[in-house]
Parts: sequence; C-alpha cells; structure tokens
Amino acid sequence: MYGSLFADILGRVRVKRPLVHHITNYVTVNDCANITLCAGGAPVMADAQEEVCEMAAVSGALVLNIGTLNPSLVESMIAAGRAANKAKIPVILDPVGAGATRLRTDSARRLLAELEVSILKGNAGEIGVLAGAGGVVKGVDSEGLKGDPVQIAREFARVEGLTVVISGEVDIVTDGKRTLLVENGDPLMGLICGTGCMASSVVGTFAAVCDDPVMASAGALAAFGIAGEKAARRCGKPGCFKVALFDELAALGLLELEQYARVKEA
Amino acid sequence: MYGSLFADILGRVRVKRPLVHHITNYVTVNDCANITLCAGGAPVMADAQEEVCEMAAVSGALVLNIGTLNPSLVESMIAAGRAANKAKIPVILDPVGAGATRLRTDSARRLLAELEVSILKGNAGEIGVLAGAGGVVKGVDSEGLKGDPVQIAREFARVEGLTVVISGEVDIVTDGKRTLLVENGDPLMGLICGTGCMASSVVGTFAAVCDDPVMASAGALAAFGIAGEKAARRCGKPGCFKVALFDELAALGLLELEQYARVKEA
Amino acid sequence: MYGSLFADILGRVRVKRPLVHHITNYVTVNDCANITLCAGGAPVMADAQEEVCEMAAVSGALVLNIGTLNPSLVESMIAAGRAANKAKIPVILDPVGAGATRLRTDSARRLLAELEVSILKGNAGEIGVLAGAGGVVKGVDSEGLKGDPVQIAREFARVEGLTVVISGEVDIVTDGKRTLLVENGDPLMGLICGTGCMASSVVGTFAAVCDDPVMASAGALAAFGIAGEKAARRCGKPGCFKVALFDELAALGLLELEQYARVKEA
Repeated sequence: MYGSLFADILGRVRVKRPLVHHITNYVTVNDCANITLCAGGAPVMADAQEEVCEMAAVSGALVLNIGTLNPSLVESMIAAGRAANKAKIPVILDPVGAGATRLRTDSARRLLAELEVSILKGNAGEIGVLAGAGGVVKGVDSEGLKGDPVQIAREFARVEGLTVVISGEVDIVTDGKRTLLVENGDPLMGLICGTGCMASSVVGTFAAVCDDPVMASAGALAAFGIAGEKAARRCGKPGCFKVALFDELAALGLLELEQYARVKEA
Repeated sequence: MYGSLFADILGRVRVKRPLVHHITNYVTVNDCANITLCAGGAPVMADAQEEVCEMAAVSGALVLNIGTLNPSLVESMIAAGRAANKAKIPVILDPVGAGATRLRTDSARRLLAELEVSILKGNAGEIGVLAGAGGVVKGVDSEGLKGDPVQIAREFARVEGLTVVISGEVDIVTDGKRTLLVENGDPLMGLICGTGCMASSVVGTFAAVCDDPVMASAGALAAFGIAGEKAARRCGKPGCFKVALFDELAALGLLELEQYARVKEA
Repeated sequence: MYGSLFADILGRVRVKRPLVHHITNYVTVNDCANITLCAGGAPVMADAQEEVCEMAAVSGALVLNIGTLNPSLVESMIAAGRAANKAKIPVILDPVGAGATRLRTDSARRLLAELEVSILKGNAGEIGVLAGAGGVVKGVDSEGLKGDPVQIAREFARVEGLTVVISGEVDIVTDGKRTLLVENGDPLMGLICGTGCMASSVVGTFAAVCDDPVMASAGALAAFGIAGEKAARRCGKPGCFKVALFDELAALGLLELEQYARVKEA
C-alpha cells in the first residue's frame, strides 16, 4: 500500500521537476545537488541574505542543512525560511551536528522556534539533543539517545507540530499520530560522507510535490534506501558505491519503488 | 578546418599547462578544478580580496562564476577582473542564475560594466536577461528567451564588444561578426550538476593560450562535447557518466578533436 | 620494520575511529572527508569561530589547510589550534599555495608562530618558501626550491621543533633527527585535484592515534601511496582513478601496508 503511494510521489517529482532550494554546507553540497537531480528535482543552492527570499519564493521546497554553520548563514536560513513559510512551501531542517557544539544546538533550536519547519530530519543523537532526551553527538555522528527513539520522536513531533525523521538502520518517520518505519538501506551508506545530507535533499524533493510530510519523508527514504541496496549489490567499496548510488536513484523505476519499499507502522 | 585549429589550441594547452584562476561557486568548484586538469590546465581557486589580484596577475585566464554569489565575492571578482585586465589575460564570465534573483542579475551587469570581459557564457535564459531579450531563468535553469538566440547573441556581442556563448543543445559562439554553432555534446550532460560550470572552465583554459576568443570558446566546447559523447557511449547513468566525462576529456587526442568537432558557421 | 609499525597505526585507527577536525578549503573538502572515512577515521568540518574550539577539544587531531583562505578563516584556525594545543592533540598544517600570494605566506607563517604545529606538510615550493630556502610556487603547484630538499626539511624541522613533510615523487618526512623517505605513490595522483589535501587528512587521521609524528606521517603517506599504486593498476584515467583511490584505501589490509610500504632512512 505505501509502496504505491510512494511511486505516485516519485512519478509526480519526475513530471513536475520541482525546484529545491538548498542552504547547506560546503562539504556535501555537490552531492546534494546531484542526488536532487537523480531523484528528478532541480536543485538550486543560494545562501546570500540578499537573494534567498526571492529564490525560496519560487521554489517547491526549502532544505536547510547546518553542516558547516556560521552566524551569517543562520540569518540567511531564517530569512529564506520565512519566505518559504509565506509561500507555503515545506521547510526541511537537517540539524547536522546539533549537540556537538553550542552554535549548532542553539541555531537548530532557533530555526525550530522562528520557522514553521515541516520536516526535521536528523540522526538519533541530534534529535535526542533537540528533544531534550539525552542525545549524544560526537562531531556529526550520533552516539545515541536515552530512551526509546520511536517514543521520543513521536512525542517531539506532537509537541512541535511537525514531522520528525530519525535516520538510522531503520528510519523512523512520525508526525506524532502516524509513525512509519523504513527498513530500506545498506550499511555502506554510512561509509561515505554525505548520505545523511543527500537523504534530506531527496526528502525535500518529494515534499515539494506532496502535501503529506510523513508520506513524502518515508517515500523519499525508501527510494534512496532502495538505491543504496542496489548500489551495494553492484559495488562493495565506498568510491564505486557512491557512483552507483547516484546511478541507481536516477534509474529507479516507479514499480521498483512500489515493490521494494519496506515500510511498516510502528 | 575548425577541427585542426581546435587541435592546435588543445596542443598548446597541453604544452603550456596554463594557470587558470577561478573565483567560482562552492557547489561545482571541485568539478571545475578537475576538468581544468583534464583539459590540460592548472586550476587555482582563490577568492579573498587580499589575494585575488596577485593570483590573477600570474594566471593565464580568469574564470568568474556567480553560482553561489554574495556581495563580498562580487568585490573580489571586480578586483581580480581589474588585475586580469591590466595583465591582459582573458576574463570569462559565467552569469549562473542571472535573471533568477536581483543580486545575480545586478552583479552580472556590474561585472560586465566594470570589467573588460572577454567571453560571456551562459544559458539562453541568462543571456536573454542580460541582453534585455526577455530571458527567463528558474533557479539556475534556462526557460528560454524571446526571439532568435543567434540574432540576440550576435547583437549583444556587437554592442558589448565581447564574445557571447549561449550553451544549449547546439552552442552558439559569436563576437558579433563571426558566429559558430557547436553541435557536440550529449543530453546526459544536462543530468549532472556542473557541466555548465565545467564548460566555462574549459573555455577559460583554452582562452589562456589562444588570442581569438571565438576559436577558444568553440574549440573548448567541441572538446568538452566530444568527451561527453564518448562518455555517454560508455555509461548511460549520471554517476558513472560523470566519472567517464573526466576520463574522456583527459584522454582526448588532438586528432580526435580535429576529426569529431562538429562546428558550422551560422 | 617500518611496515609493521605502520600496520599497527592503521589497526589502531580502525579500532578507535578518531574524530579528525578539519578547517580546510571548499575545493577538496568533500574528498578530505571521504578519504578520512576510507582511512578509518571520522571527519568533521567546522570553521565558525563560534564553534571551532569546542569541536577541536573533542577531536583526535586538527587539520588546518589554507587552500581557500581568508582573514576570518585564519582567526578560526588560530582559535582552533590553541584549543587543540591545550587539549594536546596534534595540529597538522598544509600551507597550500604559500609563496603564491602574501596572504598565504603570511598566514602560514603566523600559524607556525602562534600555534604548536605538530606536522607541517607541503610541496617543495611551499616548504622552501616557509623555510626561507627560495621556494617557488605558482598557483598551488611547486616549481621547486633552491638546494637539497632533505637538508632543508631537516634543518627547518630542527629549528621549528616540528615534523616537516615534503610531498613529491618521494615524500620526505623528518623531525630534524630522523628522516624517512616514502617511495609509495603513482604519478596519476598528480593528475587529480586534491591528492595533496587528502594526504594531509590521512596524516591527521594517523597522527590522532600515534604519538610519534614521524611514524604517523610516513605511515599515512605509505598507506595512501599504496592505495594510489593499486588504483593506478585498475584505472589509468583521472575520473576512475579517483574513484579507485577511495576504494583501495578503504580496502587496504594491515598486512598489505606492512608488505608494500617502501620506506627508507635518508
């Protein structure tokens, strides 16, 4: 059932080719742009305060990623986020490294407070920190959180009024009422830099054409995860795996997504 | 005839290994550096106002790309451009996203007004906007211009006193008097991020060793396009296509360029 | 003998997975992150003055790379370097382009003066400039130095009280007393952008788990060089060579490193 919904969303992405505005880090920005293209969207990266509002206003979604943060970039994110809220396009926030430094934690909290974020997507540590559930983050890697991640994500989503995604071996997607577990993916995705960021870009691309953030998020993660599974079957080392990951997402058929999505309710 | 001229230029690139100074965006900068190496040049990326003049002054060409723009970067571009003009090395401007935001449009116009730009290379929408010919740009993608692109490019080149390149399925290269159409390339080049930026880097590399900007531009686009055609024959998906694109440009022989260049006068 | 020491270090990297904090350029930053992962470390890139001290304090090593420098980034490097010195983690400095512009030369000198740098790793021109031995740098490429590089590196290391690495066909590693020559590597490594930066990241990763900077540097360069040799055997063109370089470092076995390291005393 979910599979066919996801295939519908992917089909819409490929027909509409939504513009996905990113304000993101300079480490994985090229990968984010290319994976957006592979999903079927049109990426645009722009971060100057002088132009982000104009760019967000004509886009289908806004992806905010704090992977290499500075105070000026936060202001650009706030301005772009307000323009996105006004234009009623979804805002996706990836709080990379929240919990690792005060700047990241405080900035992620400020973005959540000042903007209507549609989808908050992080690893267990990052979400744990932001939810006040004892998350631990070292660098940009999760060292876990205290308690049951599903419960924490659900409660945090309910209180904040948004969709929370915790990425991991099984991805958790919840808006506080519905909770989906996405089981697609491959451990090799953790051995290259940027798969978390890329996943957020695919989520943004799906959310640009789908009003339901839970379905958009789960569908995007299933599609990206299946691409990861297929890439891993072709190549077991990080360099060629990464090349294959782009290839497989670009080549992913709607029927494949429908058939291979492994999603269940929590 | 053009083919053998192009092969001469590529031969000079490989002997002289010109330094190509880029002030460019952080999305595709790595691709620009690598494609410059594959063409036979030596890339250097430097954007601080404190050093751009020194760097430009020892380079063979200066490539300005406004893909991720901010006001401070524009000042660096102006300073470097003036140093390049003084050193009499060609300045190549890629006005990425001009027309999409005021910052980009105004900055591109200012660079054209304050610098002696040798080659202006953009998509149809960007050039249409800058030429006042009703260009439409969404994000960084062209949605076309009003009228005949060859006519518009030719007139704009004549008025501005520079060489205009409109990239597309067929690339248009004109200085207002001579107009060449370059037919090399493959649709797959549009499915990866950065081919437009990379093309500008190759143009800059060729222009560094060739006084004729029309020949340098057309030769570079033919060489890059042939590499794209050969890469597409090896791989039909974006990840491996991109890898092959670098390989094929690096391996491109002078005789191949001479033989496979498809260029005609408009 | 050295081979087995190097294998020990690589083994420790893979067990401890040290966090390697980079303040680096935006050209090769993605490659640096991925090669750190391939070596067995955990990369984190953070450059805002508001967070670099916190990040450095929890890391195993700090890599400073001035490839795209500006005055604000230098302040971040100074702050992070002091935090690293206080936390007694090694600081690795790659003075990319020192000698090409005053900003780069002066900044590299200031970092050396104000921080306790553990390992200074550059090409012959860069080290020659910083050692006052007539180095010549064009863009970011070495055009050599005046005199015997081994002698210059040794004397400079002794005077500065650090380990100096001169990368080249044969890498020189010296702390003024011991001098090792690492012969691993392949000429193809010079045909892609970023191998110098990546080598510094691998050096940082090894130094994070090894108190002896000479052994950490030589071991890292041997490991990276062997990966380059194996990659070159698989692919002779820059695009696929680069993919293979990541693959081969990730797959490098401890016994392979022990067996294939080609290191001798000068």
